[in-house]
Amino acid sequence: MTDLLLTGIGRLTTNAGDTVADAVVMIVDGEITYAGTSSGAPDQGRADRVDCEGRAVIPGFVDAHTHVVFAGDRADEFGLKMQGASYADIAGLGGGIVSTVAATRAAGEDELFQEAAARVRRMIESGTTTIEIKSGYGLDLGTEMALLRVARRVGDELPVTVKTTFLGAHALPPEYRDDRKGYLDLVVEEMLPAAAPLADYCDVFVEEGAFSVDEALRVFEAAADLGMGARVHAEQLTHSGGAALAAGIGAVSADHLDHVTVDDAGALAEAGVVAVLVPGASYTLRSPQAPGPMLLDQGMTVALATDCNPGTSYLESMSMVMSLAVVQMGLSIDQAIHAATRGGALSLQMPDHGLLSPGSAGDLVIIDAPSAAHIPYRPATNLVWKTIKAGRVVAGIGH
Amino acid sequence: MTDLLLTGIGRLTTNAGDTVADAVVMIVDGEITYAGTSSGAPDQGRADRVDCEGRAVIPGFVDAHTHVVFAGDRADEFGLKMQGASYADIAGLGGGIVSTVAATRAAGEDELFQEAAARVRRMIESGTTTIEIKSGYGLDLGTEMALLRVARRVGDELPVTVKTTFLGAHALPPEYRDDRKGYLDLVVEEMLPAAAPLADYCDVFVEEGAFSVDEALRVFEAAADLGMGARVHAEQLTHSGGAALAAGIGAVSADHLDHVTVDDAGALAEAGVVAVLVPGASYTLRSPQAPGPMLLDQGMTVALATDCNPGTSYLESMSMVMSLAVVQMGLSIDQAIHAATRGGALSLQMPDHGLLSPGSAGDLVIIDAPSAAHIPYRPATNLVWKTIKAGRVVAGIGH
Repeated sequence: MTDLLLTGIGRLTTNAGDTVADAVVMIVDGEITYAGTSSGAPDQGRADRVDCEGRAVIPGFVDAHTHVVFAGDRADEFGLKMQGASYADIAGLGGGIVSTVAATRAAGEDELFQEAAARVRRMIESGTTTIEIKSGYGLDLGTEMALLRVARRVGDELPVTVKTTFLGAHALPPEYRDDRKGYLDLVVEEMLPAAAPLADYCDVFVEEGAFSVDEALRVFEAAADLGMGARVHAEQLTHSGGAALAAGIGAVSADHLDHVTVDDAGALAEAGVVAVLVPGASYTLRSPQAPGPMLLDQGMTVALATDCNPGTSYLESMSMVMSLAVVQMGLSIDQAIHAATRGGALSLQMPDHGLLSPGSAGDLVIIDAPSAAHIPYRPATNLVWKTIKAGRVVAGIGH
Repeated sequence: MTDLLLTGIGRLTTNAGDTVADAVVMIVDGEITYAGTSSGAPDQGRADRVDCEGRAVIPGFVDAHTHVVFAGDRADEFGLKMQGASYADIAGLGGGIVSTVAATRAAGEDELFQEAAARVRRMIESGTTTIEIKSGYGLDLGTEMALLRVARRVGDELPVTVKTTFLGAHALPPEYRDDRKGYLDLVVEEMLPAAAPLADYCDVFVEEGAFSVDEALRVFEAAADLGMGARVHAEQLTHSGGAALAAGIGAVSADHLDHVTVDDAGALAEAGVVAVLVPGASYTLRSPQAPGPMLLDQGMTVALATDCNPGTSYLESMSMVMSLAVVQMGLSIDQAIHAATRGGALSLQMPDHGLLSPGSAGDLVIIDAPSAAHIPYRPATNLVWKTIKAGRVVAGIGH
C-alpha cells in the first residue's frame, strides 16, 4: 500500500482537538501517522503527495443508517404524497413499502447489487467512506439473506467500509397480514440464525403500524443470543416506547427519535446508546425534526445519516443531511460535522474511524472550499474534491 | 453547427403538451425541429446521435434570479446566523451584505469573473442552460458596471444564455448611510445610464431596511425611460407594497413574494407579472415559503430560481430548489418542473426557451433516471446525465 501525504490543508478538522490551520496529514499503510500543523510534521520520506492548496480536510463521512439495497421506482408516489395523497390512497395504487418489497423480491441478486453499488458509488463521490446498510425490503428468508449478501458485496467490491444490519422486522409482509405471530416466529426462528453470519446488527421498526415494544423485545433478545447488537427504529412517527426499549436493552443506537422525550434522552445517555438522526426523513414527511440539541444537552452522542430509502428519504449525500441538521434541527455546524463523521463511527462501534489522529483510519475528505462549513452552507453542490479511503484517492471531482 | 438526434427517450417533457413516452428529439442548427414519438419522427439524415437508453428529457433549467457575481466568504456567518446570531451581532462582526460589498469592491474584475464562472459551470453541470445575473454587490458606479460586464462575459465565454439585471438599489452602501437621497441620485443619474447598455433589466429591493415603494418607483421610472424592464424584489421579509408596485408599473417579474396576499396576486396576474419564487432563501431564513399554489390559482405564471447568493441561499443547482418547492411550498412535481424551465423563460421574456417544440431553442437536459420526478425526489444527487445547449453537449456526468 502506498503512503500518502496531504500538504497545504487550509483547515483540518480532526475530531481529536481544535481545528488546525496550515496542516498536514500523513497516512501509512492505510492509517494516519500524523495529523497536525505543517511545522510540526515529521520527515515524510517517499510518500505520494497531494497538495490541498488551502482546502479544508475532514474525516470521511460515516453514514450510519441506510436502506440502499432495493429495487423499484417510487418517484411518482413521492409526488402523490407531496400533494396530500393518504397512506390508503398510496396503498390503493399499489405503492408504499409493499411495492418496494415486491420489486425487490422480483429482482435478481446481481441486479440488486448493481443498483445498490450505483447508489454507494455516488455516496463515495459525495465523501462517504463508511456506511451501514440494512435489509428489510425482502421480508422473506431468501430475499432478506440476499439483501445482506449484497450489502456485504458492496463493501467487498467498493472502496467503502460496510456494516450490515438485519431488519426483517421492518414491516409485516402482505402474506402474513393476518398472522403477526407467524411472521415474528419466522424472523426469530429462521431469519435471525441465518442472518447472524451476514449481519453486524439487528434492527426492529418500533412504531404503531409496525412492531410493538414487546414484539421488538422478543426479536432483540433472540439477536443478542446470537451476538448481534441492537439498533432501534424508535419514536419516528409517534412516541411508541422504542427509546425506552433501546435504553433498557443497551442498544448500540436509537434511530430517528423525532418524538423522543427528555426523560428518554436521559435514559439513552445513561445506557450509552448513540442517537442516529435522519433529518431527510423528517423533511420529506413534513414532520418536526428530532431534537438534536436537546439530545446533546442530555449527554448523548449524536450521529447523522441519510436514511437513504425509496419511501421517505432518497438522499445519497451527507451534504443535504447536514444542511437540514443545521437549518431545521438547530445543530451548530461543528456539531453537524462531528455527527456526520465521528458520531456515525461511534454508533457503529468503530472507535478508530471518524477521527484523524495517529492510529486512526486514513479515511478523509478534501473539501473544495476553505472550510467544512461550506458543506451545510451550500447543500446542493458536491464540494468533495477528493475522497480518500485508507490512504487511497477513490473519488473526486476537480471542479 | 452539428445537428443532434436524441433517441430512446423514456419520458419527454416538452412543456407544449402531454409527456411523451418512447420519444425522439431532433435539433438542427441549435433549434428543435422535432420533439415527439419515435414512430412519428421524420428521417434524421446524418445528425450526431445520443441514445438516451430510456432516460427522461426535459427543457434546460432557466434560473431566473441569481446574484452569482460576488467575492468573499460568509460560511462562518451562516453558521452564526443558524445558531441565532442577530443582524446586529453579524454586523458587529463585520458580516452581512456589507462584507460582500467590501470583498467585491476589493476584488479585481478578472477574479470576479473566475469566481462567477466556477459557480455557473457547476450550474451548467446541474442542468441550467439560461441564467439571470444581477449586480448589486458593488453599490458604486465602477463596481456595479464591472459586475454587469462580468455577467455578460459569463454568457460570452460559457455555454449558457445570460440575462443581466442592474440592482444598484440592493442596499444602501456604508458611505451613504446618512444620505439616502444622495445614493438614489447616484443610482438614477449616473449608474442607470451607464448600466443601460449592459443590463436587460432593472431591479430594486423593496423592503423595510432597503428601499421604499416611492424610492423604487423613482428608479423604475428612470429605468423605463432607458428601455429597461422591471424585476422587483417584493414582499420577501415583510409585506411592504412591492407586489402592488410591480403590478402598477407592469413589471416583468415580482420575485420572492413570501408575504404576498391574494389581492396582490390578482393584481400581478392581471398585469401579466411573472412570480419568480426562490425557496432556498425562505429555507435558510426559516421563514414560510411563498404561496406558490395560490399564485398559480390566481392565474400567475410561476418561475423557480436558486437566488444564488452568499447571504441567504448559496444554491447552484435547481434540484434542491425543486425539492423545496414540492416539499415545503406545495407545488406538484409537474408544476415545479414547469416553473424551473418554462416559467423561468417566460419571466425573462424568452418565449422560445423552456419549451421543446419545433422552432424553440435546443436547450435540454437528459436526466439519469426514468422520470424527471427523480429530481425533486432525490435533491442532493446530481441526476444530470448530459446538459445540451443549442444542440451541443456541454456537460454531463456519466454516473
